[in-house]
Amino acid sequence: MSTQDIAREQRAQVPVDGAASVVGTPDGARHGWSVGIDIGGTKVLGVILDPGGLVRHEVRAPTVRGVEGVVSGVVDVVTQLTAQAGVALEDLAGIGLGVPGVVAPGDGTVEHAVNLGISQRVSLGVLVAQRLGGVPLVAVENDLNMAALGAAHLSDVPVVDLAFLALGTGVAAGLLLDGRLRRGAGGAAGEIGHLTLLVDGLPCKCGQTGCLEQYASGTAIDAAWPGPHERPAPAELFDAAAAGDAAAIAVRDRFAWAVASAVRILVLTCDVRRVVIGGGVSQVGEPLLAAVQGVLAAEAQASPFLASMALAERVVLAPAGVPVGAVGAALAGRLAREGAL
Amino acid sequence: MSTQDIAREQRAQVPVDGAASVVGTPDGARHGWSVGIDIGGTKVLGVILDPGGLVRHEVRAPTVRGVEGVVSGVVDVVTQLTAQAGVALEDLAGIGLGVPGVVAPGDGTVEHAVNLGISQRVSLGVLVAQRLGGVPLVAVENDLNMAALGAAHLSDVPVVDLAFLALGTGVAAGLLLDGRLRRGAGGAAGEIGHLTLLVDGLPCKCGQTGCLEQYASGTAIDAAWPGPHERPAPAELFDAAAAGDAAAIAVRDRFAWAVASAVRILVLTCDVRRVVIGGGVSQVGEPLLAAVQGVLAAEAQASPFLASMALAERVVLAPAGVPVGAVGAALAGRLAREGAL
Repeated sequence: MSTQDIAREQRAQVPVDGAASVVGTPDGARHGWSVGIDIGGTKVLGVILDPGGLVRHEVRAPTVRGVEGVVSGVVDVVTQLTAQAGVALEDLAGIGLGVPGVVAPGDGTVEHAVNLGISQRVSLGVLVAQRLGGVPLVAVENDLNMAALGAAHLSDVPVVDLAFLALGTGVAAGLLLDGRLRRGAGGAAGEIGHLTLLVDGLPCKCGQTGCLEQYASGTAIDAAWPGPHERPAPAELFDAAAAGDAAAIAVRDRFAWAVASAVRILVLTCDVRRVVIGGGVSQVGEPLLAAVQGVLAAEAQASPFLASMALAERVVLAPAGVPVGAVGAALAGRLAREGAL
Repeated sequence: MSTQDIAREQRAQVPVDGAASVVGTPDGARHGWSVGIDIGGTKVLGVILDPGGLVRHEVRAPTVRGVEGVVSGVVDVVTQLTAQAGVALEDLAGIGLGVPGVVAPGDGTVEHAVNLGISQRVSLGVLVAQRLGGVPLVAVENDLNMAALGAAHLSDVPVVDLAFLALGTGVAAGLLLDGRLRRGAGGAAGEIGHLTLLVDGLPCKCGQTGCLEQYASGTAIDAAWPGPHERPAPAELFDAAAAGDAAAIAVRDRFAWAVASAVRILVLTCDVRRVVIGGGVSQVGEPLLAAVQGVLAAEAQASPFLASMALAERVVLAPAGVPVGAVGAALAGRLAREGAL
């Protein structure tokens, strides 16, 4: 994807919602360039945003597990991005890192991030800042919190109140409530994948049974629609269902029901204005959205209470082909330096 | 309960958690007296707090349904409380009303409050202020949000992050997150009673089946442990279970499991530091807490993930015999005038 394509997709920006909001407005006069890095289990994905909040360059690198591997990988990506943009490190308005793990709400210490091979407490932001030669502050947040910030920034209409619902290996959400990240007392807000969907249901590696993520994750689709596949299992499943395959329709509908349940949990608990569906499965696109909204609409038919909650209308897909988490991380980096995160 | 008793129970106060907190510190030099009213389906319960945040007088009146009945009832209670305290209306630092219904997050307009016979949109705070001769501002919030504020204020240890889980006719929660009320996009945050606990379970009047409130409410106990009772059904049920009645033990354990599920939902979604169990059923007291904590502890045994969330340790009972919602309403009234709500 070219820089122009990315920029085109990101014209719409979110205005500031008063001082309470952490979602910044594009304001070239006030803000400099910023770098955001989404550290995943397989790849490190970095972007550099221009002062107007547009993605100008994107860099990917394979993840090297362990603290040293992660820190070196991040430093390499930051260095590449600033070189590509011709921006000096000291002129950056911020750097942010999204981490797939538990991050302490107070100081951004990573408590553990199993998929990165990090099991001890580590101040990842401090280590990266030192290695970069003493940049003032590197913001660290859970990757889904970063994605929630990114989704708000990239939204086509102003919204500062949403859940980013990630359907990937597992299921979890990032929460932006009233313009503020909801990290939770222990940094574990949004761990809805381990709520019980079906009592006495499928066993989960967490030790419970019937967990939501056994039904609403990409892993669940892989299990219920086994390969070999030429394309990702979710895409093949939804295509087969659209072509009328009865088995595929059954698997798809059960999956959509589980995702709809996740939406219901998020809205009836937090009453978020919007639920943004992201993660690997969201690459299915409109057919996924239609299936989930179909379940929600049918449930609303049966329940005046659910109808009043307008669940189907709150659900949207994360923007396709845009590194939402990395964009959010860049925003967070800037906002942290401004004391607004 | 005498004023002294009430005051004794409320010595402990919550310190301010920086500018972000809406939970005030007792500060006689800064704050005046305030009145809080909890408007329930059967009774209107008012308290007046002294400048130190202690309950000094309490007044109850039967609820008269409809807008006129509610407004008149509130005005009568406010008048009685100020007379008892010898405080002039214009010297009050604030007045707050807790309403069992949906309250618009922006302006405190009551959208509907079925149990009060109010089905149209009404600015209850404005009507009460006018009837009282033009007091500056009357804060209106959902009654469980008020209870969440009250529970924080009355806590024995400082806490500004909690869910007030009300087990009464239905099941719902008020949320105080990072020191701020979470009202939600449409004022419906905390409506967890209509999340599905058991797929294809008991029918609910909301049109769904298997809703949490079919299992975790006082109504659910009434249905599962039918009378005649000399005391409230929950008290008789827990006593019978404690005496070894096998049927009572089964009903109690199922109820405790449902309440534990509510706790899990609140913590895995919002990661609240504390879950305060209130509502009519909470009058059972320690046996209820023990039963719920027992379920949570057993679930933690089976799941390292749940163990890491320390659910049992987060649950406490609302203070017994204290009108938590009315206390919170009084605080809210003061905070609203200070622009801090």
